[in-house]
Formats: sequence, structure tokens, C-alpha cells
Amino acid sequence: MKIRELALLVEGTAEGDSDADIYGLSGVETAKPGDLTFAVDENRLMKAEKSAASCVLTNKSMRKSSKALIRVTDPKLSFVVVFNAFNAPEDKGFFIHPTAVVSQTAKLGKNVWIGAHVTIEEGVIVEDHVIIESGSVINKNCTIGPFCHIYSNVTLYKNVKLHKRVILHSGVIVGADGFGYIKNKGKIYKFPQLGTVIIEDDVEIGANTTIDRGSLSNTVIGAGTKIDNLCQIAHNVKIGKNVLMAAQCGISGSTSVGDNVMMGGQAGLADNVTVGNNVIIAGKSAVIGDLKDGAVVWGFPARPISQTKRQMAVLAWITKNFKSVKKYCE
Amino acid sequence: MKIRELALLVEGTAEGDSDADIYGLSGVETAKPGDLTFAVDENRLMKAEKSAASCVLTNKSMRKSSKALIRVTDPKLSFVVVFNAFNAPEDKGFFIHPTAVVSQTAKLGKNVWIGAHVTIEEGVIVEDHVIIESGSVINKNCTIGPFCHIYSNVTLYKNVKLHKRVILHSGVIVGADGFGYIKNKGKIYKFPQLGTVIIEDDVEIGANTTIDRGSLSNTVIGAGTKIDNLCQIAHNVKIGKNVLMAAQCGISGSTSVGDNVMMGGQAGLADNVTVGNNVIIAGKSAVIGDLKDGAVVWGFPARPISQTKRQMAVLAWITKNFKSVKKYCE
Amino acid sequence: MKIRELALLVEGTAEGDSDADIYGLSGVETAKPGDLTFAVDENRLMKAEKSAASCVLTNKSMRKSSKALIRVTDPKLSFVVVFNAFNAPEDKGFFIHPTAVVSQTAKLGKNVWIGAHVTIEEGVIVEDHVIIESGSVINKNCTIGPFCHIYSNVTLYKNVKLHKRVILHSGVIVGADGFGYIKNKGKIYKFPQLGTVIIEDDVEIGANTTIDRGSLSNTVIGAGTKIDNLCQIAHNVKIGKNVLMAAQCGISGSTSVGDNVMMGGQAGLADNVTVGNNVIIAGKSAVIGDLKDGAVVWGFPARPISQTKRQMAVLAWITKNFKSVKKYCE
Repeated sequence: MKIRELALLVEGTAEGDSDADIYGLSGVETAKPGDLTFAVDENRLMKAEKSAASCVLTNKSMRKSSKALIRVTDPKLSFVVVFNAFNAPEDKGFFIHPTAVVSQTAKLGKNVWIGAHVTIEEGVIVEDHVIIESGSVINKNCTIGPFCHIYSNVTLYKNVKLHKRVILHSGVIVGADGFGYIKNKGKIYKFPQLGTVIIEDDVEIGANTTIDRGSLSNTVIGAGTKIDNLCQIAHNVKIGKNVLMAAQCGISGSTSVGDNVMMGGQAGLADNVTVGNNVIIAGKSAVIGDLKDGAVVWGFPARPISQTKRQMAVLAWITKNFKSVKKYCE
Repeated sequence: MKIRELALLVEGTAEGDSDADIYGLSGVETAKPGDLTFAVDENRLMKAEKSAASCVLTNKSMRKSSKALIRVTDPKLSFVVVFNAFNAPEDKGFFIHPTAVVSQTAKLGKNVWIGAHVTIEEGVIVEDHVIIESGSVINKNCTIGPFCHIYSNVTLYKNVKLHKRVILHSGVIVGADGFGYIKNKGKIYKFPQLGTVIIEDDVEIGANTTIDRGSLSNTVIGAGTKIDNLCQIAHNVKIGKNVLMAAQCGISGSTSVGDNVMMGGQAGLADNVTVGNNVIIAGKSAVIGDLKDGAVVWGFPARPISQTKRQMAVLAWITKNFKSVKKYCE
Repeated sequence: MKIRELALLVEGTAEGDSDADIYGLSGVETAKPGDLTFAVDENRLMKAEKSAASCVLTNKSMRKSSKALIRVTDPKLSFVVVFNAFNAPEDKGFFIHPTAVVSQTAKLGKNVWIGAHVTIEEGVIVEDHVIIESGSVINKNCTIGPFCHIYSNVTLYKNVKLHKRVILHSGVIVGADGFGYIKNKGKIYKFPQLGTVIIEDDVEIGANTTIDRGSLSNTVIGAGTKIDNLCQIAHNVKIGKNVLMAAQCGISGSTSVGDNVMMGGQAGLADNVTVGNNVIIAGKSAVIGDLKDGAVVWGFPARPISQTKRQMAVLAWITKNFKSVKKYCE
């Protein structure tokens, strides 16, 4: 595409040689001739100018440049828009690798692509344009909505439901039994895990993350939510829409998380906690009680972030002045 | 089964129409006609009464109800007993999927069920009634005791021993090399990992949990112990009987854990630590020293929970009163 | 090998019956006749003497023993040297299991060994002496250097590069998309993940660890680095040489870690942090800022370890003396 065509696409204004052709996208460090890159600040723009890139997406307020520019409101977002235009998902057509094992009672839609050594059990429904890569196992009666992409070596236990455009990265396990036991007179009894897992539209789940099936209700991941690698979602958890959860977070049983919540890496939520909408939980926090809409928390245990920081500062002061504290208070 | 038959089964007393038939079990939210549910408090009993459930397991002291009741000492436990009676494991008969690769030197017991794309290497012993689901890999000379259930995409490294009724959920890795290295003059040498892993009767291991083989001794998981998802058990660890370990816990090398220990999610134990029997380690704790029988700990680092809470309260008080503290102590 | 031959191998001095034959190696607890073991202290030497071992590697300064000894500078290191001499990797010859699916455009070197149900896609280069075990999936255009060992059920996404002698344990996922999104007007856009992962010589990666591909640059793991199980390495991370990272650590996006860094279990590094060379990060630490060469840190957040310990001690003192602190400061 020509630069001026790209400018139209992202509703920006082109500067410089807007007839040049763009063949690909890249970061400033690796840009080749014919590449589009982006620069959100002066420092990045300088790097872009030194690179071989043919065009730079940048802010409306940025200075002039020797390179061809496209000025937009949000260069990073426009970069994504162009990327998606260049990388429309190709239709691979209907394909089942001869080594895949697909039950005769499974129903496969149009343009389904199934890789080598995949197993699809009885009663599974795979809708149109689904990709299931090598080595994945789809147990009985799962339903997989249109345009889902299941990478390699994923396991879905029975009855799991994926809505539309769900992405599951390699090693994801959805629907294993929740951790539910009853102790009685020194013996441990396994509590039945009768629910399933429902993953709504446009959810993406990172590599090796585990999402347990519900015990008496279902585990639900709301539309648009993105979960990073190695996270744990316990049984009966309800996660709202457009939640962003970084790697190695854990949510304990029956906890609910509102919409638009953001969680930093390695945060943990205790069981039966209710987290409101628009909450921010900083990395490694231990959430042990309910959080209201809009709360911003950090710490062990998690408290309002300003309070946690103040406590840390006070402890540092006391430690520095410990001699006099001790003298006065002993 | 009829309600009065169920009452006999759980040693309870039936009230109301005890001749009605029960066809299934469910929680109060999802109960259908013909279902048995349970209610441990007044609130749940009200929900059960509003549901379509035909019978409610409840406490002996609970009020009368419009629904048929079965009164027992522990309704939740009785619910499990009925569930197990309804769901006796069906015998699927002897089955090896044609895509499975089973070494001619492996020995398979009666009623073994082996799914698609499974690999079973030389010298493996699989005892009666074992289920190994699609995509799992059992390396050389493993032994798998009767009634074990190995879900999909599990890997057992060579020589691993599972005793009876062990459940391994998908993605579990048992017997990978422990993390043992020697640094010498800037070079890192891998220390041999010559031991194996022994998992005793009735252990259940959650999805994507990893259990490393011992270096010079074995890693051992004691009978009845339940480990949740994404836990790490390092080399030479010895875990006692009936331990409950929630998700994302980690136990470092050569640490031993006594019987009946309970660990909350994301707790971590340092290496070479000895944890006694009946210890409770709350979530996210960092255990860096030995713990005596019956200890109840929390924190970073883990200390007796009352001490940790008191320290938190004191720091909060000091922070709140920091002006006067500073005035007096500076 | 005879004891005196082993003594030559490890540059040690033999004592006792140096003509006896050694057939294997083991720890003091499990030693059999014909075994070599090692003892770094008096206590271990006593155990070794009570064992059936035929010879003990020990320090130059250790007392005399009834057992045959080989005295060396570092018994544990010498044990490794002997182990490696006994366990030179056998050449299994060229082998592709008939169930493996290998693209015709993949290039396989000499003595490559490929297990059952492996998938190798288009354009993959597998160099000499590589082992790829059952169920692993190697996506398009990966390159796997000589003597790499990929255990079972591993997934490499497209374009990943492994240099020489890399070991990937089961369940490892290399090259999944990084966790990169842009929020705009309540919608979440996936940012392109265009880079790949480069793993240099002699790296070993533990079971179920995940290493994401770069977004605009590459994720790089430096030569000699060892990463334990269930670790998370985010996109664009650069890890130096000879780093030791214990289990369940997480490194957030675009963070760089120098050479010879050591990280205890469950430590977490925030994004865009720079960690210098020779840094030691104790277990469970939360690193939220840059760390200079040689720093030794611990805590939440991570600070110099002596400072963290002092703060803990001060808080304990204040808590113990809270009555008088309160009286003076209220």
C-alpha cells in the first residue's frame, strides 16, 4: 500500500513522499526499507530517522522530519490498525490432518483447520473458521465458536464452551476439576465438580494458564478479557469484561472480578472475594477482602496503594531513626 | 433411587415425600426436578425451596420445610456420599486407541483404557483399570498402579512410580530433572538427577503442576495428598499424608512437609526446611525456616499468624500517628 | 573403571584399595557395592562408611577412612565429572518414529532422533544429534542447533531459534505471543508480536516454563543460563549469561537481566527494569526498580537485603514494645 492510502486508513495526514510503497511493519530497531514504523516521542523519532524505515507514524504535534510521516492521534494504535490491515487472517480452507482423530459424532463447520495428532471426542461442535493446532485434545461435548484459535498441546475437558474469536495459547488447560475436598475424621473426600467453563467472545488466554471447571455453578471468563501466561483461575470464579491479568496471577475459588479490572503479575486473590469494576491491583498484591469499584491497591495484604506506600515510608523512617525511637520509647 | 433409600445410604432421616425418585445432584442455583441438593444454613435452604430440587440434604437442627428433606450430621459430606453412589466409575473395558504407541515390552493390566496419540515406552507397567488419556507420554520403566487416572497431555519421565488411584490432571509433568547445578570458576555444571518420583495412594495433582525427580534420593508425595494447579515440587522434597496444597505453591529442594499440612495459594517454602504435622501456612507466605507441629503461619517471611497480624496493626497505627511519633522520636 | 583411573580423571589422590572397580554413582543413602559416592563433611563421611559404597570422593583435609577414598579439591564437582564420564550421551543413530509428522521442507541433520507423535512444520532446521521427544510440536521455520534435547509435549511457535546444546523440559512453551494490548475508548486491541525468541548455547529450561516472543525486538536468553520450572519470561526480555533462576519466577516485558544473576523462587521483576551483573535476588522478592551490579536484594519491594532485614527487626521491636511506644507517641 502507498503511504497516502495508509494515511486514509488511519485517518491521519501524510507528509513527505506519500506515493512510496509500504511492504511491512517493524519497530525502529529492526526496520528495513519499505517498512512502516512508529514514534511516540522525539527520542523514538530520531531512532526512526536513523533506521531504514520508509515511513513513520507519529503524533500531530511532533516536529518535521526527513522521513515521510503520517500524523495521527495515537501512533501506536494506528500501527495496530495498519498491522491488522496487512495481516487479515488468511482463509486456509477446510483441512483435517490425516493423523487427527475426530469423532464421527463431532460437527465441524466451514473452513475448519485441524492439525496433526489432534483429538476431538464425541459430540464436540467446532464452528466455522476455527483453527486447532497440533497435539490439542478436545474432550466430549465441548463447543468451539467461530474464529477461535487453539494453539498446540491445549486440553479442553468435557463440556467446555468457547464463544467467538477466543484464542488459547499452547499448554492451556480449561475445565480440569476444581480443588474441592471435604475433610472428615482424618479422611479427605473429593467434592464433585459438576459445572463447566464458559469463555466469552474475544478472550485470549496465555500459555500454560489453567482454568478449572465450576463445582456447582460454572467458571466464567467475560468478553474481551485477556489473561497472560501461567495464571490460575479456580472453580466458580466469575471474571468480568475487558479484564487484563498479567502473568502468574491466581484467583481462588468463587471469587468474582468486575469489568475493566487490571492485575499486575503474580497477584493473588483469596477465595470468595468480590472485586468491583475498574479496580487496579498492582503486581504481587495479596487481595484478601472485597474491593470497591475503582480501587487502586498494592501490598501484602493489598490496601490502597497510597496507604501501602506511606506505611513503607514510615517503616523506613523509623528504621533510620531507630536509635532515638528506641531511646524515647523503651 | 428413592429418597428413603438415600436417607439409609447417608444414615439420615427422611422428611416429607420419601417415596419420590431422585435422578441427579446439583447445587441450589441449577437444581432441576428430580435433583437432590444440600443446604447448610437457612439462606441456602430458602434458595433450595425456591429451586426445582425434589429433596434437600440439611442439618438435623434445621427448621421444617415445604421440600422433602434428609437430615444428616454433615449435609455437604452426605452430598458427596450420594454423588459417589450415583457415579461409580464405569468399567470401560480394555481399550487401546489405534493411534497409541505402546512398546511391546510394556505390561498392561485388565481393563486398561489408553486414548489417542498416547506414547508408552519400554518396560512400563500399567496395572488394572488405569485410564491414560490422549496425548500423554509415559517414559521408560514407569509403573502405574491400579485405578490411576492420567488425563491428557501429561508427561511422566522415566522410572516414575504411581501407587493406587492416583489422579494426574492435564499438563502435569512428573520426573523432570531437578534444578541442581554447581558453579566453578564461572562455569555451571549440571548435577546428576539420579532419583525418581514416588506418588503414593489417592494423591491428586492439579493441571500443569510440576514434580521434579530426586537428585540422589527420591521425591515422595504421601498418600492422600492433594495438590492444586501450577504448583512446583522440587527435587528430593518429601510431602506427608493428606496434605492440601492450593494453587501456585512452590516447595524448594530437599524440604520436607509433615502430614495434614494445609497451604494457601502462592505460598513458597525455601529449601532444606522441615515443616511439621498439622501446620497451616496461609496464602502467599514465604516460609524460610522450620515449622513445628501445629504451627499456623502467615507473612513475608512467615511467622505465627497472630504475630504477623499484630505487626501489621502496629505499622498501621504508627503510620496513622506518624506526626506525633516523629515529633517525639526525631 | 578402577578407583585409581577415576583418581586420575578428577586429578585426585586415591587411598585404600585403588584397584577395585567402580560401576556406578549414588548418594550415601542409596549406595550399593561398586558405587562411588561423595562426602563433603565428617557427618557425610560417616554415612558413606556405613553404606555399601566402594569408594568415597572427599576433601583433601578429611580424616582417614576404612573405605577407599579419592581426595580432591571439590568432591561434589568431581562427582559430576565422574558422572559425565560414565554417562557420555549415547548416539542413538538417525531415527524418526513412523507416527511423527515431518514436513518435507524441514531439514534434518545427522543422528537426529524424533519420537512418536512429534510434529515438525515447514522450513524447520534440525541440526545434528538433536533429540525431540514424543508429542512435541515445532512450528514453521524454527531452527534447532546441534545436540539440543527437547523433551515431551514441548511447543515451539514459529521462527524460534535454539543454539547449541539447549535443553527444554516437558511442557515448555517458547514463542507464544507476548501480553501486549492497547486500550482505546473501552476497546482492547492486540499489539502485534513480530519478534521471536533466541535461546543461546547451553541453556536449560524447566518444565512448563513459558517464554514469549518479542513484540518489536526479540526475547533473548543468554548462553549458559538455567531456568527452573513454571517461570515466565515476557516479551522483549533480555537475560544475560549464566543466570540461575529458580522456579516460579516471573520477568515482565522489556526487562533486562545481566550476567551471573541468581534469582530465588517466586521472585518477580516489573517491566522495563534493568538488573546488572552478579545481582542476587532472594526468593519471593518484588523487584520494581533498576539494580546495580552486585546488588543483593530481598523483600516486597526488593531492597538491599540488610535493609530489609533491619526493617523487619525494627517492626518486630516496635510491636513488642508497642505499649510504651503508644504511651509516648500518642
